[in-house]
Amino acid sequence: MDFERAFDALNQAKGKRVIVELKNRKQLIGVLKVFDQHINIVLEDAEEREDGEMKRKLNTVFVRGDTIILISPA
Amino acid sequence: MDFERAFDALNQAKGKRVIVELKNRKQLIGVLKVFDQHINIVLEDAEEREDGEMKRKLNTVFVRGDTIILISPA
Amino acid sequence: MDFERAFDALNQAKGKRVIVELKNRKQLIGVLKVFDQHINIVLEDAEEREDGEMKRKLNTVFVRGDTIILISPA
Amino acid sequence: MDFERAFDALNQAKGKRVIVELKNRKQLIGVLKVFDQHINIVLEDAEEREDGEMKRKLNTVFVRGDTIILISPA
Amino acid sequence: MDFERAFDALNQAKGKRVIVELKNRKQLIGVLKVFDQHINIVLEDAEEREDGEMKRKLNTVFVRGDTIILISPA
Amino acid sequence: MDFERAFDALNQAKGKRVIVELKNRKQLIGVLKVFDQHINIVLEDAEEREDGEMKRKLNTVFVRGDTIILISPA
Amino acid sequence: MDFERAFDALNQAKGKRVIVELKNRKQLIGVLKVFDQHINIVLEDAEEREDGEMKRKLNTVFVRGDTIILISPA
Repeated sequence: MDFERAFDALNQAKGKRVIVELKNRKQLIGVLKVFDQHINIVLEDAEEREDGEMKRKLNTVFVRGDTIILISPA
Repeated sequence: MDFERAFDALNQAKGKRVIVELKNRKQLIGVLKVFDQHINIVLEDAEEREDGEMKRKLNTVFVRGDTIILISPA
Repeated sequence: MDFERAFDALNQAKGKRVIVELKNRKQLIGVLKVFDQHINIVLEDAEEREDGEMKRKLNTVFVRGDTIILISPA
Repeated sequence: MDFERAFDALNQAKGKRVIVELKNRKQLIGVLKVFDQHINIVLEDAEEREDGEMKRKLNTVFVRGDTIILISPA
Repeated sequence: MDFERAFDALNQAKGKRVIVELKNRKQLIGVLKVFDQHINIVLEDAEEREDGEMKRKLNTVFVRGDTIILISPA
Repeated sequence: MDFERAFDALNQAKGKRVIVELKNRKQLIGVLKVFDQHINIVLEDAEEREDGEMKRKLNTVFVRGDTIILISPA
Repeated sequence: MDFERAFDALNQAKGKRVIVELKNRKQLIGVLKVFDQHINIVLEDAEEREDGEMKRKLNTVFVRGDTIILISPA
């Protein structure tokens, strides 16, 4: 099985802006700095959005993997 | 037990368009690139749908396995 | 403990039509092809039902075990 | 710790009618055939009830342990 | 760490009447017979209550640990 | 990593009154007797509160860790 | 994989004020003292907020990791 390769898409997104969809119906948009095998991630220069509206700036943010639905280049 | 064989259906779907039903009542439709044993998947050329309506294009998207209900050829 | 034997009922259902009750209040009805120890399953010739109504045909479908409540011969 | 003994009550219920309370607010009543350490169970000659009303007959049914609240002799 | 000692309170409650608060907002009151490390428990001479009202007698009942909030001498 | 040290705050709270915030929106206030690595805890001389109101006395109470949000000196 | 590096952002936040977003829609703001690999954390000089309003002071508070969505410098 391609355990490693499932993370390739995340590796290629490192250093780039991504949109992170959270289970609480909010989105985080920021530069993906790191992730680990639980999909815990760190974003920089991030902002939080809800219903398409920017809610707040978060600069560096650590996100617990089990709250994440999907990650996609912004 | 056929641990491997349960993933055969996913292996055969690689490179093809699949519909992915998420626990948040949305669907993702895209080309299945990879999956791992947690059913973390990567789709390409993806779009998100809700109530049958296309919501947005996502190109490459990494989806955390624990948010997935089912995966089926589109 | 009869770890193996709990799966006997599923083994006997292989190749037969089963109804699969999901946590999202929908049902899948299809031929059980494989299952693994997480109760990840693959159905073929499947359809999805909600409130007794057929919603869509799914042909081959991979279902993540943690979304399943019960499996029973149709 | 009495890991084994916690399952004694289930062992003694084997071959007898039990009521199984599910997290989806339904009940299954049937003859307990097997269970494993995840409390995955198989019932035979089962019926599903909701709000005290019989909903359907299920004959043999495999129930995923993580959907079960309690099991008690009927 | 006092892994064992956290269970002391449960050990001391064995053979005594306890109230068990469940995540489904119901309570079980009965004699605590056994528990294991998942806090799966067996009660005897049990009754189920909801909003302070007795709902039904359950005699012997096996309760899956992950549905339990707290256990306290009745 | 400071696995041990994350529990220091709990160790220092032993024998003292703590407030325990539960996922069911209730609070328990009592003397922290023990905890284990799952954050299963035992409180003594406890009371349960909801919306700031005292609901009931619980004396000794075993609380399953996965229902706990936070623990803080009262 | 950068298992360690995902925690770097948290390490750098130690001793500084952070905002912790919880799954119960509340926020905790306090000085991050420690965290472990489950993202169990200890805050000092903390306050709880809901809908932007300060709810209460909590001084030292132990937060169970599985209730946390994100952690970010305040």
